[in-house]
Amino acid sequence: MPTVGEHHIVKSYDEQLKRLHDAISRMGGLAERQLELSMKAVETRDDTLAGEVVASDAAIDADEHFVNEQTVRLLALRAPVADDLRTVIASLKIAADLERIADHAANNAKRTLVLNQTAPLAPVRTLLRMGRLVQELLAQVLAAYLQHDAAQALAVRARDQEVDALYSSLFREILTYMMEDPRTITACSHLMFMAKNIERIGDHATNIAEMSYFLITGQSLADQRPKGDRSNTEGLAP
Amino acid sequence: MPTVGEHHIVKSYDEQLKRLHDAISRMGGLAERQLELSMKAVETRDDTLAGEVVASDAAIDADEHFVNEQTVRLLALRAPVADDLRTVIASLKIAADLERIADHAANNAKRTLVLNQTAPLAPVRTLLRMGRLVQELLAQVLAAYLQHDAAQALAVRARDQEVDALYSSLFREILTYMMEDPRTITACSHLMFMAKNIERIGDHATNIAEMSYFLITGQSLADQRPKGDRSNTEGLAP
Repeated sequence: MPTVGEHHIVKSYDEQLKRLHDAISRMGGLAERQLELSMKAVETRDDTLAGEVVASDAAIDADEHFVNEQTVRLLALRAPVADDLRTVIASLKIAADLERIADHAANNAKRTLVLNQTAPLAPVRTLLRMGRLVQELLAQVLAAYLQHDAAQALAVRARDQEVDALYSSLFREILTYMMEDPRTITACSHLMFMAKNIERIGDHATNIAEMSYFLITGQSLADQRPKGDRSNTEGLAP
Repeated sequence: MPTVGEHHIVKSYDEQLKRLHDAISRMGGLAERQLELSMKAVETRDDTLAGEVVASDAAIDADEHFVNEQTVRLLALRAPVADDLRTVIASLKIAADLERIADHAANNAKRTLVLNQTAPLAPVRTLLRMGRLVQELLAQVLAAYLQHDAAQALAVRARDQEVDALYSSLFREILTYMMEDPRTITACSHLMFMAKNIERIGDHATNIAEMSYFLITGQSLADQRPKGDRSNTEGLAP
C-alpha cells in the first residue's frame, strides 16, 4: 500500500501527464481551427476573418511554450521511462509541428489580404481543394493520436503523396496563369507561397502521424517516406 | 570511492553524452558545408556540384536519426537532470534545426538545375549576398554552441532581422524582374523559393541561438523575437 505521501506523488505525476496531453489536444483543436478559418478567409475573400486568424496565432505559441516547460519539468522531476517517456518525447515533437501548422495558416491569412486587392484568380479553386484535403488529413491524424490508433496514423502518412501531387500540379497551373497574364504576377507569387504553406502543413501532419505511431507502438518509422512532389524541378528540360 | 561497476557506469554515461555532442558537432559541420556548396553551385552555375549536394542530404538525416535514438536511450537509462538534461533536450532540438538547414540547402541545389537552363538572372546577386550573410550567422551560432558562448548566441539572434530585411527587398526585386520580362517567370519563381529557403535557414540559426542560450544559461528566451520580414504583405496597398 502506498503511504499518503506516495499516493500524492503518483497522483500529481498522472496529473502532470494529463495536463501535457490536454495541452496537445487543445493545440490540435486550435491548429485545425486556424487552418479552417484561413481557408474560409481565402474562399470568401474576407479581410476581417483573415485578420482574426493572424491575431489568434499567439495563443498556440503560448501553448507550445507551456508544453516545452512542462516537458523539461517532467523529465527532470519524474524521470519517466517506457510509455511515459515516449509520451513526453512525442508531446514535445507534436507540439512543435502543431505550432508550425498554425504558423503556416496565419501566414496564408496574411497573404489573403494581398489576394483580396485584385480580381479573383482561377487557381485559387485548386488551392481550396488542396486545403480541404490537408484539413481532412489533419483531423484524421489528430484522431489517430487521441485514440491511439496506429493503423490510422499509417493511413494518414500514406496520403501525403496526394498532397504533394496536388501541389506540383497547382505550381504548374500558377506558372501558366502568370505567363498568360503578367499583371497577376504579384498576387500569383503570394498564391505560390500559400500553396507551399499548405503542402508544408501536409508534411507536419505526416510528422505527427510518425510520432503518433512511435508513441503507440514504440517503433520508429525510419524508412524514407514516399514523395510525390515534383515541383522543385518544374521547368527543367527532360 | 566508486566501485569498478559504478565507475564503468559513470564513464559510459559521459561517453554517451560525448557521442551526442559529437553527433551535433558533425551535423553542424555537414549543414555548413551543404549550405556553402549549394551557394557555390548557384554562383558558378554548376549542375554537377548541385547534384552532389542533393545526393549528400541522406548523411545528415542519418545523423539526426542517431541523435533521436540516443536521446531517448539517455533519458530512459540515465534520467539526466540539470545541465545534462538541458544538453539532451537542446541536442534533440538543435539536431532537428540542422537537418532542416541541410534540407533547405539541398532544395536550393535542386532548383539551381532549373536556373541553369536559362540565362543568368540579375537578382541572383542579391541571393548570393543573402547566402553569405546566413553562412556567417550559421558559423557564428555553431561556434556559440560549441564554445558555450551565451553572448555570441544572443548576437546571432539579433541579426536575423538583417536576413529578413534582405529577403523582403529580394522578394520585391524578383517581382519587378518578372514583370519586366515575363519569359523569366519560371526561373524567377524558383528563385523566390530559394530566397525563402535561405530566409528559413536564418530562422533555424536563430532557433539554434535560442536553444544554445537555454543550454548555457538555463533561461529560455520567451519574449517575441524581432521580425524584419515584410514580404508577406508585399503588394498590399497602404
